[in-house]
Amino acid sequence: MPLFCDMLSMNSRKRGLERFAMTAEIIAVGTELLLGNIANTDARDLSQELGELGINVYFHTTVGDNPQRLAEAVAIARSRADILITTGGLGPTYDDLTKQTVAACFCKKLVRHEESWTRIQAWFTNAGRAMPPNNERQAWLPEGCDVFHNPQGTAPGCAFEVEGTHVIMLPGPPNECLSMFSVCAKPYLQRLSGQCLVSRRIRVFGLGESMVEDKLRHLMEKQKNPTVAPYAKQGEVMLRVTARAPSPDAAFALTEPVVTQITGVLGDVVYGVDVSSLEGCVAELLTRRKLTLALAESCTGGLLSKRLTDIPGASGFYRGGVCAYTMAAKTALLGVPADLLDAHGAVSDPTARAMAEGVLSRLDADLALGVTGLAGPGGDGSDNPVGTVYIALAVKEKQTQCRKFFLGFDRERTRLMAANHGLDMIRRLYQGLTIPDPAMKEP
Amino acid sequence: MPLFCDMLSMNSRKRGLERFAMTAEIIAVGTELLLGNIANTDARDLSQELGELGINVYFHTTVGDNPQRLAEAVAIARSRADILITTGGLGPTYDDLTKQTVAACFCKKLVRHEESWTRIQAWFTNAGRAMPPNNERQAWLPEGCDVFHNPQGTAPGCAFEVEGTHVIMLPGPPNECLSMFSVCAKPYLQRLSGQCLVSRRIRVFGLGESMVEDKLRHLMEKQKNPTVAPYAKQGEVMLRVTARAPSPDAAFALTEPVVTQITGVLGDVVYGVDVSSLEGCVAELLTRRKLTLALAESCTGGLLSKRLTDIPGASGFYRGGVCAYTMAAKTALLGVPADLLDAHGAVSDPTARAMAEGVLSRLDADLALGVTGLAGPGGDGSDNPVGTVYIALAVKEKQTQCRKFFLGFDRERTRLMAANHGLDMIRRLYQGLTIPDPAMKEP
Repeated sequence: MPLFCDMLSMNSRKRGLERFAMTAEIIAVGTELLLGNIANTDARDLSQELGELGINVYFHTTVGDNPQRLAEAVAIARSRADILITTGGLGPTYDDLTKQTVAACFCKKLVRHEESWTRIQAWFTNAGRAMPPNNERQAWLPEGCDVFHNPQGTAPGCAFEVEGTHVIMLPGPPNECLSMFSVCAKPYLQRLSGQCLVSRRIRVFGLGESMVEDKLRHLMEKQKNPTVAPYAKQGEVMLRVTARAPSPDAAFALTEPVVTQITGVLGDVVYGVDVSSLEGCVAELLTRRKLTLALAESCTGGLLSKRLTDIPGASGFYRGGVCAYTMAAKTALLGVPADLLDAHGAVSDPTARAMAEGVLSRLDADLALGVTGLAGPGGDGSDNPVGTVYIALAVKEKQTQCRKFFLGFDRERTRLMAANHGLDMIRRLYQGLTIPDPAMKEP
Repeated sequence: MPLFCDMLSMNSRKRGLERFAMTAEIIAVGTELLLGNIANTDARDLSQELGELGINVYFHTTVGDNPQRLAEAVAIARSRADILITTGGLGPTYDDLTKQTVAACFCKKLVRHEESWTRIQAWFTNAGRAMPPNNERQAWLPEGCDVFHNPQGTAPGCAFEVEGTHVIMLPGPPNECLSMFSVCAKPYLQRLSGQCLVSRRIRVFGLGESMVEDKLRHLMEKQKNPTVAPYAKQGEVMLRVTARAPSPDAAFALTEPVVTQITGVLGDVVYGVDVSSLEGCVAELLTRRKLTLALAESCTGGLLSKRLTDIPGASGFYRGGVCAYTMAAKTALLGVPADLLDAHGAVSDPTARAMAEGVLSRLDADLALGVTGLAGPGGDGSDNPVGTVYIALAVKEKQTQCRKFFLGFDRERTRLMAANHGLDMIRRLYQGLTIPDPAMKEP
């Protein structure tokens, strides 16, 4: 049975004198995960956090609300990881068995934690609700553990250590899990290493992940403190620079030269450091300048407007927009002349300009975007291939600029990238950069 | 070591004569999952599919691109499941090690599969791209396996059986994984049981998951064939009704009385059976009647427009919309009288009506929605609590209807639910149903 030999050797390796970086295993507990009702986003988010802490994650395990199979998963994880993190199964009902089961695996008994019991009762009093008797179960915790309070719910989490293995139990709902990790589990893990960590996020738009990696490979490989790791998402790249030091100030200071070096290498595709998103960056640039924006969208169909109004307080800089999904809407709502549409077509440079200028004047905004393109799957009978998008940026009392893009054949991605390019044109204008013309690029 | 005893006993239990429902374990292979770059949505989606097939999933495991740890995960899974499904690690590069490693675990050698090799070469020829030499690796597959072609990429998948354990390998990218599961793996698994499965999806809006469960508990508990399972998502509930029978027609026939019974119990909150979404349902109702829609959105800020234009071919029924995020936009683009706004405020019944009627006439559409509300987090200085939303439905030559909703304090959820309620009002109108007034409901 090769399995058992392998595991014995791993076990002895782990218990040996040479200890390198610590390893963690995430055990998600919940039948709803095994039924496919929800995706295990806690494992994704905790893995990112653990990576920043310099803790290696070699396995994720998901198991249902079943004590025997949970005990089996805990035994396997204990044999191969230094830190076990469970998520889920801390609720008040009888299928929430994580604490009882995991405590038993480590020969710990549960005792009622009086402070937690008081907090749970207070939570129901404050919410004006009667407490079901089951909720008392949530106050029972492994004897001698560190208790993690839950500001967002009633289930406390906890941490304890047995023979060199650290066990951390967190609630399952993502907001409770992540806030408890940040507030309670992260400091617990940092105490293990005696170090503070600081992460910086460098946000990049306009250069693919592989190109970013090519440009930074020497840096990413050489750097141990801080570390540099890229993440691709939503048509953008994020670089995370994480440093460890005895104090937060010292850790931050370690990140500074690396952030400067990376932004120097990548240049103006870096749209911000420690900002939330491209739309967040635009919102901040406009708010700071007290400028107002209007939108005229065709192929993006409201996506840009939706993303900007996802931001609380968007009404401070966003005046409104038009989704001109038909020729008639372009004429009626934006005043695009019918003969211009006839002569050039809906997907054209003059139409994009007329859309931007039309919404700019109608909403008396300081700047406006006009976006028109073919997201597909069908064409429009013109020579434009699917994926052609024109984006015009009109600014009060300035000359309108327009750019043409080819964004591929995937409808969803074309819409996403058109919105990103529109936001990036605004960001470049107010960061004093040129707006590159994709048509001028080498293929 | 209780772990080993447990596992031995499980092993012998599994190999015993009594075989109940089959069990599967999903092993996701990919360091990007352990780094937290992406969530394991394949495990969620495959678990749903396996549930429909009547196959129990007791564990998900995630492991990196590391042959030793993958072999360990395979050995553990083999000891406790009848079917092992791997996702990921079938790419052409040297860190894609799933086939080599899993084949070795089952003492299978890899041989070049000539048909796959021809397909891979043709894929590059058709794409007009030079084939990197590495891609030949993708044509090497376990000897004697069933080969699963990949219409969406170059990596073939496969299935084989060794001593009663079935192994299925699928690619990692979600679109490739799920399409290969449906087209290749599902029939493979159905052959194991000699049964065909048919699933029906009953879509519900306007009743929470727990209320749906309460109303259907007797049915869900009693039903074995078909089974009935609820899924909550995006403010809606989906009920899946799955039947098994020797033929697809026989399975479909088994679902019919249960679907009828459920729609009878739930009534008009069922917006469709086997439809894609609320917006898909509306798109279909309008397209069939050759009606055109216009939108005037305030608090939803383009979300409704975005959701409708996510649908390919939306220009067939959607004329366009206005995102009137400011008072000035409501006046300039929709013709809402300034004195009406002064008298009643932006978040009011008359404003919602004027917005809907304004966009209806400006775009000469057959029907229009006007949505205005307070998504928060801040209020608007009026008496309206955050979460108040008015939705008006204007129909050419008919009287405009308006409803007032309280949608809670979460900005994102308020916007989502406002969009859902707007779509539901349209759907009810064209399904000949009354549009209920939430203000008339018992609290």
